[in-house]
Amino acid sequence: MTYCVAIKVNDGLVFAGDTRTTAGVDDVRSHPKLHTFELPGERVFVLLSAGNLATTQAVLNHAWRDWNGDPGGVSLRSVRHMYDAAEYIGQLLVRSQRDFSQGGQYSNVDFRATLILGGQILGEEPALYLIYPEGNCIATSPETPYLQIGESKYGKPILDRMIKMSQTSLEDAARCALVSLDSTMKSNLTVGPPLDMAILPRDALAIAHRLRLDLDTPYYAALKKAWGEQLEKVFREALPKFEWEPDPNQQNLPLPPQ
Amino acid sequence: MTYCVAIKVNDGLVFAGDTRTTAGVDDVRSHPKLHTFELPGERVFVLLSAGNLATTQAVLNHAWRDWNGDPGGVSLRSVRHMYDAAEYIGQLLVRSQRDFSQGGQYSNVDFRATLILGGQILGEEPALYLIYPEGNCIATSPETPYLQIGESKYGKPILDRMIKMSQTSLEDAARCALVSLDSTMKSNLTVGPPLDMAILPRDALAIAHRLRLDLDTPYYAALKKAWGEQLEKVFREALPKFEWEPDPNQQNLPLPPQ
Repeated sequence: MTYCVAIKVNDGLVFAGDTRTTAGVDDVRSHPKLHTFELPGERVFVLLSAGNLATTQAVLNHAWRDWNGDPGGVSLRSVRHMYDAAEYIGQLLVRSQRDFSQGGQYSNVDFRATLILGGQILGEEPALYLIYPEGNCIATSPETPYLQIGESKYGKPILDRMIKMSQTSLEDAARCALVSLDSTMKSNLTVGPPLDMAILPRDALAIAHRLRLDLDTPYYAALKKAWGEQLEKVFREALPKFEWEPDPNQQNLPLPPQ
Repeated sequence: MTYCVAIKVNDGLVFAGDTRTTAGVDDVRSHPKLHTFELPGERVFVLLSAGNLATTQAVLNHAWRDWNGDPGGVSLRSVRHMYDAAEYIGQLLVRSQRDFSQGGQYSNVDFRATLILGGQILGEEPALYLIYPEGNCIATSPETPYLQIGESKYGKPILDRMIKMSQTSLEDAARCALVSLDSTMKSNLTVGPPLDMAILPRDALAIAHRLRLDLDTPYYAALKKAWGEQLEKVFREALPKFEWEPDPNQQNLPLPPQ
């Protein structure tokens, strides 16, 4: 399994993902799931992947071949709009899945993958798309400023609580993505370190920060420690006491009888 | 769907669950999932249920019939040990599922349910069991002091971070259960208010506190508000800044180059 998340706020885009790949608990490896395509000043894309690893690697290989190939052909280098980029990647995805399914028609392997493509093309707004195995896609909206793929449930509450497209800073969004990943890693063994992150400020048309964070990377270790300590502090000090608890500082709130 | 959680700490047991029952998004109702059996001073049980509602109601009806029936028969009133209680409820569960499956053999309804049974019998330790649809069960352990049934992923990280059997107070465990439920309700529509809670202090052999909390119950509203505000404060003030952010208060931590 995998967990990747991408967030769109007014200041730009944040992408983050783990690197654990599992084919059963006795076959655990590490593969990057965050990939970048960049023409600084012109266009920048980040692709996050979840699902069948051979499928996502095939998509990436085709995308790179097109990127480096015939300048007249369709590629992330040539598409005019972000939506066209998502459609193009969706077509590569459907084609890869179909090719492998035909080869593996007598096996019960699941060849599907799900992708997040985001970025910005000069003259357009930054955009984020979740690309389904069927090749279609959905974008973020002000009401839903983030997209997730893979093992998404553990890390969803903190995103729902914290991310507001017009209020959250790019760095707070990045910290929230890391906490969301950390929560997922704590509760699910199929999501594991190191973590990859890319931060694209609005209109920079480049990746401003590309991080690989392991458990002992000083920043990530400090974030984990601070988050754990602060949550304990909130529980100990800042949540209202029940009416039967002694509490010199707060007015206890009455509970309805049952 | 449903979400119920039970926590065992040194000071006693906490049980909490939502009340939403869904048979598709166009058939949403409210049914309690927290049920209590109590002989104060002698024995006390709490049963939490997830899964097919007819199955769990059948189990409860049989358990109540036995409780009020022949004093010589097997019931929660007569079992000698907590483990026997879990085995007995597991047998009722398997029998109900089998009866309904035979009646519904041409339908594709899922008659399974999963239960949590906890409590204390005079002379024994408090105990918590998760009872599977197959009728077998697992208990908590110092390493795994909580059990969940239903839509469990959203609310798991906060439990993993906060609950330590020998350190967490009964009231902090109760607040943690409420936050875990609140996170789940925020992220999943099939889990909904009001919430039910029961708190059993160790050796009280009675339910000390039985609460029903709706979104506008003052205590729950205050808890939600405090939790949301405190998390925002932690994000704003207490997490380490990235090295490229201006931060007068903290020493920024270096990030490895990529």
